Amino acid sequence: MKKLLILLTFGLLCQCLYAQKTDYPLIGAQVFIEPGQTDKDIDQFFRILNENHMEVARIRMFGAHMLQADGSWDFTLYDKAFDAAKKYGVKLFATLFPPTDQLTDVGGFKYPRSKAHLDEIAGYIQAVVTHFKDKPALYTWVLQNEPGTGGSGPAQNDLVDEIYAQWKAAQKAPTYNNGFLKADFTAEYFHMYYTAWYLNWIADQVKLYDKEHYTHINPHQLFDNLIDYDFPAYEKFLTSLGVSMHLSWHFDYFTRPQYPLGISLMADVVRTAAGKNPFWITEMQGGNVTASGNEMLCPTAEEITQWLWTGIAAGCEGVIFWTLNQRASVMEAGEWGMIDFQRQPSDRLQSAAQVAKTVIENKTFFQEAEPAKSNITLLYNMESLLTQEKNAAVSKDNRNEGRKSSATMKSLAGAYEALSAWGVIPEVCEMQQYDWSNPKGKTVVLPNLVALPSYSWTKLDTFVRDGGRLIVTGLTGYYDENMHCLLMDDYPLRKCFGGQISEYKVIAPYFTMKCEQPATTIPVHMWKGILRPDKAQTIAMDGNDVVATRHKYGKGEVIWFPSLIELGGWQRDNAGVVDFYGTFCQEAIAEAPLCFARPVNNVLMRIMESPKQNMVVLINKQHQPVEIELAGNVTTPSKILCGQGILSGNKIKLSAGECVVYLYDKTR
Amino acid sequence: MKKLLILLTFGLLCQCLYAQKTDYPLIGAQVFIEPGQTDKDIDQFFRILNENHMEVARIRMFGAHMLQADGSWDFTLYDKAFDAAKKYGVKLFATLFPPTDQLTDVGGFKYPRSKAHLDEIAGYIQAVVTHFKDKPALYTWVLQNEPGTGGSGPAQNDLVDEIYAQWKAAQKAPTYNNGFLKADFTAEYFHMYYTAWYLNWIADQVKLYDKEHYTHINPHQLFDNLIDYDFPAYEKFLTSLGVSMHLSWHFDYFTRPQYPLGISLMADVVRTAAGKNPFWITEMQGGNVTASGNEMLCPTAEEITQWLWTGIAAGCEGVIFWTLNQRASVMEAGEWGMIDFQRQPSDRLQSAAQVAKTVIENKTFFQEAEPAKSNITLLYNMESLLTQEKNAAVSKDNRNEGRKSSATMKSLAGAYEALSAWGVIPEVCEMQQYDWSNPKGKTVVLPNLVALPSYSWTKLDTFVRDGGRLIVTGLTGYYDENMHCLLMDDYPLRKCFGGQISEYKVIAPYFTMKCEQPATTIPVHMWKGILRPDKAQTIAMDGNDVVATRHKYGKGEVIWFPSLIELGGWQRDNAGVVDFYGTFCQEAIAEAPLCFARPVNNVLMRIMESPKQNMVVLINKQHQPVEIELAGNVTTPSKILCGQGILSGNKIKLSAGECVVYLYDKTR
Amino acid sequence: MKKLLILLTFGLLCQCLYAQKTDYPLIGAQVFIEPGQTDKDIDQFFRILNENHMEVARIRMFGAHMLQADGSWDFTLYDKAFDAAKKYGVKLFATLFPPTDQLTDVGGFKYPRSKAHLDEIAGYIQAVVTHFKDKPALYTWVLQNEPGTGGSGPAQNDLVDEIYAQWKAAQKAPTYNNGFLKADFTAEYFHMYYTAWYLNWIADQVKLYDKEHYTHINPHQLFDNLIDYDFPAYEKFLTSLGVSMHLSWHFDYFTRPQYPLGISLMADVVRTAAGKNPFWITEMQGGNVTASGNEMLCPTAEEITQWLWTGIAAGCEGVIFWTLNQRASVMEAGEWGMIDFQRQPSDRLQSAAQVAKTVIENKTFFQEAEPAKSNITLLYNMESLLTQEKNAAVSKDNRNEGRKSSATMKSLAGAYEALSAWGVIPEVCEMQQYDWSNPKGKTVVLPNLVALPSYSWTKLDTFVRDGGRLIVTGLTGYYDENMHCLLMDDYPLRKCFGGQISEYKVIAPYFTMKCEQPATTIPVHMWKGILRPDKAQTIAMDGNDVVATRHKYGKGEVIWFPSLIELGGWQRDNAGVVDFYGTFCQEAIAEAPLCFARPVNNVLMRIMESPKQNMVVLINKQHQPVEIELAGNVTTPSKILCGQGILSGNKIKLSAGECVVYLYDKTR
Repeated sequence: MKKLLILLTFGLLCQCLYAQKTDYPLIGAQVFIEPGQTDKDIDQFFRILNENHMEVARIRMFGAHMLQADGSWDFTLYDKAFDAAKKYGVKLFATLFPPTDQLTDVGGFKYPRSKAHLDEIAGYIQAVVTHFKDKPALYTWVLQNEPGTGGSGPAQNDLVDEIYAQWKAAQKAPTYNNGFLKADFTAEYFHMYYTAWYLNWIADQVKLYDKEHYTHINPHQLFDNLIDYDFPAYEKFLTSLGVSMHLSWHFDYFTRPQYPLGISLMADVVRTAAGKNPFWITEMQGGNVTASGNEMLCPTAEEITQWLWTGIAAGCEGVIFWTLNQRASVMEAGEWGMIDFQRQPSDRLQSAAQVAKTVIENKTFFQEAEPAKSNITLLYNMESLLTQEKNAAVSKDNRNEGRKSSATMKSLAGAYEALSAWGVIPEVCEMQQYDWSNPKGKTVVLPNLVALPSYSWTKLDTFVRDGGRLIVTGLTGYYDENMHCLLMDDYPLRKCFGGQISEYKVIAPYFTMKCEQPATTIPVHMWKGILRPDKAQTIAMDGNDVVATRHKYGKGEVIWFPSLIELGGWQRDNAGVVDFYGTFCQEAIAEAPLCFARPVNNVLMRIMESPKQNMVVLINKQHQPVEIELAGNVTTPSKILCGQGILSGNKIKLSAGECVVYLYDKTR
Repeated sequence: MKKLLILLTFGLLCQCLYAQKTDYPLIGAQVFIEPGQTDKDIDQFFRILNENHMEVARIRMFGAHMLQADGSWDFTLYDKAFDAAKKYGVKLFATLFPPTDQLTDVGGFKYPRSKAHLDEIAGYIQAVVTHFKDKPALYTWVLQNEPGTGGSGPAQNDLVDEIYAQWKAAQKAPTYNNGFLKADFTAEYFHMYYTAWYLNWIADQVKLYDKEHYTHINPHQLFDNLIDYDFPAYEKFLTSLGVSMHLSWHFDYFTRPQYPLGISLMADVVRTAAGKNPFWITEMQGGNVTASGNEMLCPTAEEITQWLWTGIAAGCEGVIFWTLNQRASVMEAGEWGMIDFQRQPSDRLQSAAQVAKTVIENKTFFQEAEPAKSNITLLYNMESLLTQEKNAAVSKDNRNEGRKSSATMKSLAGAYEALSAWGVIPEVCEMQQYDWSNPKGKTVVLPNLVALPSYSWTKLDTFVRDGGRLIVTGLTGYYDENMHCLLMDDYPLRKCFGGQISEYKVIAPYFTMKCEQPATTIPVHMWKGILRPDKAQTIAMDGNDVVATRHKYGKGEVIWFPSLIELGGWQRDNAGVVDFYGTFCQEAIAEAPLCFARPVNNVLMRIMESPKQNMVVLINKQHQPVEIELAGNVTTPSKILCGQGILSGNKIKLSAGECVVYLYDKTR
Repeated sequence: MKKLLILLTFGLLCQCLYAQKTDYPLIGAQVFIEPGQTDKDIDQFFRILNENHMEVARIRMFGAHMLQADGSWDFTLYDKAFDAAKKYGVKLFATLFPPTDQLTDVGGFKYPRSKAHLDEIAGYIQAVVTHFKDKPALYTWVLQNEPGTGGSGPAQNDLVDEIYAQWKAAQKAPTYNNGFLKADFTAEYFHMYYTAWYLNWIADQVKLYDKEHYTHINPHQLFDNLIDYDFPAYEKFLTSLGVSMHLSWHFDYFTRPQYPLGISLMADVVRTAAGKNPFWITEMQGGNVTASGNEMLCPTAEEITQWLWTGIAAGCEGVIFWTLNQRASVMEAGEWGMIDFQRQPSDRLQSAAQVAKTVIENKTFFQEAEPAKSNITLLYNMESLLTQEKNAAVSKDNRNEGRKSSATMKSLAGAYEALSAWGVIPEVCEMQQYDWSNPKGKTVVLPNLVALPSYSWTKLDTFVRDGGRLIVTGLTGYYDENMHCLLMDDYPLRKCFGGQISEYKVIAPYFTMKCEQPATTIPVHMWKGILRPDKAQTIAMDGNDVVATRHKYGKGEVIWFPSLIELGGWQRDNAGVVDFYGTFCQEAIAEAPLCFARPVNNVLMRIMESPKQNMVVLINKQHQPVEIELAGNVTTPSKILCGQGILSGNKIKLSAGECVVYLYDKTR
């Protein structure tokens, strides 16, 4: 049996049900079930959900609560939860959580300890899935809580050895080999494979007993853990992808006023990572922390409103807060809850209920709504993340953003923020998942992608030749996928980019350079990239050095500013970066349903489109009121869903911290 | 033999001699004996003590100096020390110090490495005790230098395994079990047991050969190591308890001007921890550090005076400086000494001699003097310390005081400082050792005691009902002893406290809240605790939230301010905390023999009472002169023991840094 | 064979060739050879050297590139490099670099992993040396890249055990034994021995096949690694000593404006450490860093000029930049290069070429030139470095310079900088290598040498008695070589120094004391050293404490300021330290060929002397122009080699950042 299980071809049982779409975004919360709770307690939790317009909940199926000393299973406690959920019309995400000890029961183990442990896990899954699969409240199996280890991978054991041997044997020599030494990413790629293998194994186990319900996982610490995840592989055995967004744990890239921006970006990353599947925000911080978390934080009612509308406008199928009721004992006891200690709704829960109610009241809009698509796409790639991680491990530089493993995603976030200052949300996509066809009118940004893998060179060249625009910043293209430095070769993108890099030079942690087109001052972090143009036109000089060019190539063009401009402006004065992106994305910005006439900092706008109506979400994170002039097809609201911001002509006023959501009818 | 030893029932041989009281506080110093010293050297050290009014000394009985290569013992060097001590009338604390290697000889090992090692230690004790027990200078055996490991516990070995098995078998199921998960404190409680077991074993070994002399230990790094110590167990096999106070090592909770406060608090903790035994300050920093210590410091002569009078007024039997003469070789060589390198008395030694002389001259006062008792008691408990430690290990938060393992004792120190600003020193006590009888007129403070163990609930309720006043701050009562969060249950103290906690919310690292009663501004750290009062009267609101209440209950009352107010004011502006304690401890303050008419910062006052006279110690740690108005039964000094501060009417002037000590005759 | 190799008596095959002198300083660069490079690439690298007046290069003989899967060796790639070097007249330093894996190939392993590994290394050396020894371009074998591990020493293995047993057996009891405990430096001294043993073993292996070529090593992280190096042992098996100076890695003692000072000092240390051998700067940072380095830095063209002239004036045989071409793959790819990515010379390479050209054009001067000798010598000693390291490991004090392991060399650097402010460069020497004969007119400085080993006491006493001047600062002489504190004994240097230390006292991290002679304010770090003079004259008091004395003794004198004055002024206001050294080194300063009439900060002057001409190098690191008044035998330049600084009378003007180099004819 053991042999059989682990020799199952990867994905053999993957029979995707169907896309797990909801008619409208469901708002819900984790109900924390644990011994000590009475029947009345459990009933009350689901009743509270019901009273607050929450139609979905998640529960953790603690094996440690169910497994008895004699090896039998006692499901009584959880039966009550499923029954109460049914009673109050709540759909359940049930998180598989095989037995743990006290030290690991906060997050759960991520990998089996051995083949014997894998058998035990199989036993747990069989017991739990066969028992609960026919419960009416069951909606979705969450295969594992928060997979991902920040790159640290599984510890060696007999199971790992076996899977490694199989994987290793299946590896083929890469077709690209330029004769230079190759960096050894074996551990990293195996880790990524092994995570996918194990999640798929869980999915297969579930499907042995239940082929009817959805399957889901919720990656966490998303930007740091991207190197762990093989999303295209997950697409096959999941019906939806999720993400945990605990601001106290997962948002150290962002300041508190940037949280809506961060939620928006994380949602965009997950949406494209999910592929054909829809996505959920499976965990969103619902309450206060005491012993937990890095960033000390209790969300305000206002923030809950902002975060929810941001997630909804980004196209999620629903948002599940962590948690409705606080865990009662041991680690994290009394933390994170949306009800207070007397089970009264907190102001946070009231906010969430208000949003949930509004969504339900407007469900017809959401049935056909999608986030507005942008012609601008920010790309990242696995190769840059892995290379940056490897370099960061060597330099261990805690002072300079540009040397940390976070430099790739923070550069991308800087570009995202610069565009959002124009009222426009770009697409965000891993390079392999980008659709390179039809480049006409498309803009692709490569923000500090230190590695450009060989497969991308022709794609990029063709994209530009056929009419696309490429914006290239930072140390993009320094390496290939083997950490070979491309810059000293006959640069593979020389023809397309219209020149080459002469040198990178450390100047200072932060400095500025003058740009002519647009006429602005660009903030830069650390290195000046010096260009040696062939046919490209110079758009910025620093002393005698060309530092930015614009190159018409075929029907398209390439804008190349090979310095860390996004990190130069990140959480500092980024006006120059906003100017830069505003200039070179001008047409794409203008094509959005709405945009800002002039850039506005710390105000997020997201738009959802449906055939007849559009929904506008506007969040003012400035500490004072703002008046924003909208551009595009500005139309009087047909319905205000949230806030009071009054549109007068093409101007809208938002008080400090206000979140305005409105619908307007499309004229065409 | 080996078997026998370790199977001795814990405490079997504990036959307490009698309380180790001195007629008056003895001042002394460690004489560091080591190879290379001549007879003349050793004689000189004790002569210097004698010349400086020091009647007590401590020496470390280095097994490594005594044990010969052939396994025999050579006691010559130490015989000389005992002889010289006798010659100069110096009583000796002899610290047992079994053979160590060079790396561990600074502090000594804390646990045996194995059962074989335990046998070696037994051999050392037999050799040393039988040899020295009849020396006339011998006064007290110090069983081990500075027991305590900051919670890290013993490494696994055969001895630990055996004792653990015995201990584990003897554990009984606790009577309190509410069905919820329990945090696992097995390691912590075993560690505490094992430390006590081993110290008791040493005491038993000593008593096999010598039942005549006192037994003593000197805990160190006191507040951090409290979780290591089972003081009630120690009470049985010791005749006195001690404490090490190296300001360079052990006072990182305090700023330098706070050192007298810190010494005062540490002494109060040790005094109650000692139970029926008296206490000593077994090590007090005597000199300069070069390679040692965390805080770089050489005490000034003025500080030595301040620290000594603080310790004396706190009721210690004596103070032993570390060291008279510097260690001459290897680690710590040339550091800590009170004589200079030519063996001339430093200004520090001169200060100490002056205090010693004064004490001797006034010995009749000290024969019957005791520190003035307060009706206010600050409690801490082991459960809060252990819980805070466990949570701190998870959050590893170095920025926020409220999340560190030190949060309990720093909150207590904040309350202690606030009361001392009124010229009053409260009692300090572990909760289990508090005498709950006769609550009338008593005030008990529970400063941020995150865990209230189940045994305490009825005691607290009864205490208030019968007329006591309870002041409750911070996250007190968040957990029970199992880290189960009590707040979401039917709160066991709801009736007594007159309400419940609705929520804790992170607001900011430091913020303030307005209080109505007293009308003041309260500094707060991190969390706002929001109350849902039943019958309690609101005394502070923050927005719409009740944040403090006062509840008359039976004959007593409860003041509840469930925010970190002490940490909010700790080493910041604590005026609001001083107001708060001044208001709710008003009667108790007024009952003190003397107090300040208005609060004064950074001036410490301690009072000793004897039947006919009281002694007042006043230390001005402000950087400028102060004039203080005393309240109470202000009487003209009958004798000035130290300083020049002149009492005029009920006002006394102190210059910057001045320490005034005077006696006055009691009128009644 | 294995047995034989490791039993070779240490130094058996040491047959020193002859001193590896060059006619004039050779400027060159590392050519990084690696798979993937074409014949054309390799030819081009050496052609570029040739075009830029570089006559020397270094290459790393990567065993990993040469060793084939079947155990054979393929030298093709490196043959091409040797042929190209020959074609362009470039001499090669060939660095032995036995096979490594990817993780260690950046710096190379420092010790064999086992006896079996030693055999493999022997095989590598045999293969490489026999193959390349007859190549005309071969100039010097570099035995190992950057030996030295910062004190961490070899991991235990069979080879280490064997060598340790031999070494241990050969140790003799030291003649000095005062009966006190001795610190255990066994590990440190064995580590030092083992490093020397292994380097000598490599040299022996090379000489089995090639007795014709030079042998060299390049210590790195020099000041931190001094405790690893037994330079006198190396002198026997090397023909020249080198040093790596990567400013990004190795210059954390210095600020960027101090880099010329740091290079000057490091060169002086290596020059004396080399003994009779000449020295090279084997690696000097040539370009930008991205993932590497601690200090983020790309040298400017101006800095390259400054650094080269500093090294040349310090008497090196040549300077080899790291690197000409960037490594192309994996760690450090694209970093450190002097050519840009299109192999165009960077401004840095152009600067270096200009200096190289100038040197060649003036080669006749350099044939007989030596750095001007000073009568002032700053001493350091191994005992102080080891003691400081041991103490620093205990205190782990990151805040206070005086407690770090760097305190010895930073104190010395402070003295060096204070003298350089007078335009004078002192000698720098390990105490054992100092020539104590002829003390008349000599000044020796002992800057914070915490340990004065017993062998030095008589030497110091005699030196002063016979007319030398001793300047003693900091905690000099606190310990002997066993970490026994000398200060509390009959101080062995009491007669010579004219007094004793009473105490050291911590005052504050930084404070000042008034000095009478010279009348100035002296900055002090941490401790006040208090003196008890016998016959010495007091030159500074602090309150009632004597803090500095001057003692005429025999024909000489001792100036004793036992506080950390150099660290007090290090990277702070050091005017008082400059005054102090200027006063007590007045005659020696005046004896220099040239000096500054008044002290000037951040301007470095070094002088080379030849029989007929002197060369003056002046570097202005101030951010503004300076005009300096020279003193001594000021003569009109006969030739300007660099810069434009115009000498008018005895004044010279330098613009900000300017480096002026000129020759002048000697009149006598």
